[in-house]
Amino acid sequence: MVGIVVVSHSYKIAEGVKELTKELVPREVPLISIGGTSDGRIGTELEDIIDAVEKVYTKEGVIIIGDVGSSLMNSKVALEILDLEGYENVAISSAPLVEGAMVAAIESNLGKNLKTIKEKIESKRLIELI
Amino acid sequence: MVGIVVVSHSYKIAEGVKELTKELVPREVPLISIGGTSDGRIGTELEDIIDAVEKVYTKEGVIIIGDVGSSLMNSKVALEILDLEGYENVAISSAPLVEGAMVAAIESNLGKNLKTIKEKIESKRLIELI
Repeated sequence: MVGIVVVSHSYKIAEGVKELTKELVPREVPLISIGGTSDGRIGTELEDIIDAVEKVYTKEGVIIIGDVGSSLMNSKVALEILDLEGYENVAISSAPLVEGAMVAAIESNLGKNLKTIKEKIESKRLIELI
Repeated sequence: MVGIVVVSHSYKIAEGVKELTKELVPREVPLISIGGTSDGRIGTELEDIIDAVEKVYTKEGVIIIGDVGSSLMNSKVALEILDLEGYENVAISSAPLVEGAMVAAIESNLGKNLKTIKEKIESKRLIELI
């Protein structure tokens, strides 16, 4: 299954996304949801994103879904570092966080590939898919 | 300012949205973020939505932003009940939860009206606005 890394600015949102996707897709999906800085503030950390991608990585790839600003910027830096380390099949999505994570979890569980999942969660019809 | 009611299925996501918008818009915005059922499960409750709208309601109106499924269905029922009670200027948005709440908080704080806020958070360029 395609791995999913959810990157929020908020630890609470990250934890909530985890419980929500677990409710929606009871089967185990390779999803890691992270949020907040290591000292408990609002923000995202590059190291955490890299660690999360490495943990869920398989040859089927990983999709990263962030909320805003620095989560996407840090994800882009993470992508470059990971690429150098040989984790080549990683994509960043511009999908909205909660809705994107839920649909990605459903689709990954159904065995869909990275490209299909990315297209689906970035579709403007996303809300109707849930 | 236009009131904002955020309705998630997850208490944690609701709390996270609260802290994130507070970080983004340090000035007081009339935003209530609710999530989960009264017994702590994943879900939304009609009563909570009605209470939240009543609390932030002014003649400038209220926008409701939900995550998926029952949050929007319960919001629609809430809307009908609130309308009968005289809370007429309430709109439900199909915007994504986290990103929609953040932009709504920014725009409400800037004094924008309900129609403008709704259009902005439902725009497909939403992600670029944050």
